[in-house]
Amino acid sequence: MSVKTGSDLITRPMLMINEAQCRKNIAAMATKASIHKLLFRPHFKTHQSPEVGKWFSDGGIRAITVSSVSMAWKFATEGWKDITIAFPFNIRESETAALLAESTDLNVLFDMPEQASALGNQLRSVAGYFIKINTGNNRAGLEPTDYSGIDQIISAASAYPLKFKGFLTHAGQTYKAQSADEILAAHQNSKDILQQLKVRYKAKYPDLIVSTGDTPSCSLADDFYGIDEIRPGNFVFYDLMQMHLGSCGFGQISAAVICPVISVYPHRNEALIYGGAVHLSKEFLQPEQGRKTFGLAVPFQNNIWAAAEGQDHLSSVSQEHGILTLDSDWAKQLKPGDLVAIIPVHSCLAADLLGTKSNSNESF
Amino acid sequence: MSVKTGSDLITRPMLMINEAQCRKNIAAMATKASIHKLLFRPHFKTHQSPEVGKWFSDGGIRAITVSSVSMAWKFATEGWKDITIAFPFNIRESETAALLAESTDLNVLFDMPEQASALGNQLRSVAGYFIKINTGNNRAGLEPTDYSGIDQIISAASAYPLKFKGFLTHAGQTYKAQSADEILAAHQNSKDILQQLKVRYKAKYPDLIVSTGDTPSCSLADDFYGIDEIRPGNFVFYDLMQMHLGSCGFGQISAAVICPVISVYPHRNEALIYGGAVHLSKEFLQPEQGRKTFGLAVPFQNNIWAAAEGQDHLSSVSQEHGILTLDSDWAKQLKPGDLVAIIPVHSCLAADLLGTKSNSNESF
Repeated sequence: MSVKTGSDLITRPMLMINEAQCRKNIAAMATKASIHKLLFRPHFKTHQSPEVGKWFSDGGIRAITVSSVSMAWKFATEGWKDITIAFPFNIRESETAALLAESTDLNVLFDMPEQASALGNQLRSVAGYFIKINTGNNRAGLEPTDYSGIDQIISAASAYPLKFKGFLTHAGQTYKAQSADEILAAHQNSKDILQQLKVRYKAKYPDLIVSTGDTPSCSLADDFYGIDEIRPGNFVFYDLMQMHLGSCGFGQISAAVICPVISVYPHRNEALIYGGAVHLSKEFLQPEQGRKTFGLAVPFQNNIWAAAEGQDHLSSVSQEHGILTLDSDWAKQLKPGDLVAIIPVHSCLAADLLGTKSNSNESF
Repeated sequence: MSVKTGSDLITRPMLMINEAQCRKNIAAMATKASIHKLLFRPHFKTHQSPEVGKWFSDGGIRAITVSSVSMAWKFATEGWKDITIAFPFNIRESETAALLAESTDLNVLFDMPEQASALGNQLRSVAGYFIKINTGNNRAGLEPTDYSGIDQIISAASAYPLKFKGFLTHAGQTYKAQSADEILAAHQNSKDILQQLKVRYKAKYPDLIVSTGDTPSCSLADDFYGIDEIRPGNFVFYDLMQMHLGSCGFGQISAAVICPVISVYPHRNEALIYGGAVHLSKEFLQPEQGRKTFGLAVPFQNNIWAAAEGQDHLSSVSQEHGILTLDSDWAKQLKPGDLVAIIPVHSCLAADLLGTKSNSNESF
């Protein structure tokens, strides 16, 4: 058995995190929140990692966002005490959430009165709630002027130890934007809607806050007037989609999937890599008139990935493998057993699939 | 704490397997293989489950296919002794594969001579190998008439305890077919190519076999002349894609993802369910002039899913949630806390994401 060191130990696809850049991303967003006097409640669904959580904790962060009851439970056991589950409440998890509310400051999200009564019936201690507003993403939430719907939820909740915290939105439509202007317009629209609701309900609920926070808006916007809290998540790693949207530069991307090259097919300018849908997901980018890409391939040496040499990209993925379309001289010289770094289209999904393992190599 | 029974216990998305139908699918394909005098080496990447593996074992199956060294290792520890890793060999896993070859009848796949020497250098016992041929899928393998490439691999392997078993292909292009005729044409093409290679190399390697086996071809074809072995995998569960291709009927689908309804939005004929990309993957179907679908929604009651009531389908998925577009009267009456069964587009990915848990309810 030979002694192996460094990248020799990588035999299968693995997610690699650039810890230093990741900490910079956290510090930059925390600073931005502070400048704009915003509560900063980062979304932990992107990394789902206790270790990355510790980097936030090192940065002074105490309040977090998650997307499911089970994720809230996981981070509560890691010591996080102030948690918002930023998805309309799943009434089938009322008992578990009620139990969690006994040991944490738990906030949930409602967009139907049934959710308030289901959770309320199980609560033995106070939980906070936000009302989810649809500001154009059309996934969840009440329409912005559905005051009757809002009042029905507040009324249903009032019978229980449920405290109304305010209004919350996720302008997820920014992920499908084609330009920075489009992202800023969506952000402006969300701000306006939340501001109107705040004005309308402030007299009766003077402590209410309004919360927003998709990564594209939080990265690009400089006007947060009227907003009280932001909840971005993806910014911790960023990814190809965010770079494409202009939310980040290549240097801010702090996660890549390292994949072994299996075979090369010079006659069709392609290589086969170990790394597919179960590692990177089937998420793809397809710019107008551009080629479909499931990830950008860049060199990986001495435990560091480098800038792209050209348009080398994953052009298709099957369950465990992917086809790399070769463009640059570097890529055309790849051979079996080489490692490449794939910048994922959507780091949240890659991290969910592969689990987050940090690489704290000093080179990073 | 109230006592809960049956479906009350389902609080989050879960994969449900109809064991009886699954066993029927196994028996049907085993019978077909037997009628056509084919070796049957089912692909275990679809289910990756020791329990489903046992159902194959109950059906007399002793030889299996997997798609990675780690999957081979997993099933070897479950007692499977005759394993083909049906993907070009990852030379970074040479040591592990060599170790595995000591306790199992292991076959690997080569499409470059480097793979043969890398594994060969580590082997302390015999391993078999197939040469992978590209019959139109354009993912991996040598071109059908690349005799020089074939001979280079055989020559490289001959220095080691590597036994040439024959030629293998995966006509994965059938998954993108638009009709049964197109699938059968791809199957015919693969057969012809493998047959030509067999004729050419049979004199020198009289024991060589040729192996094929995508689920669409194995389900639809009735002519396997010249083929020695089939390796379908997906047929164990089937799914929406296979139904769309005509490989199966609805009744043969034996896997569904059970999801709680979170909220309903009658004004836009939509519902929000707990069940998204991390449960179902981002794989979608988009028939020509048809709507994009990430899964078909059907009723789920008494631990059984029923036939579709209409065109109720998942029209979009985010990380953990999906939007159901409501068509039927049944779907339009859904309310928070109800359960729906989602027939996945691609059961292999859903099973990989959720893990395979069988439901051995007597109703099934």
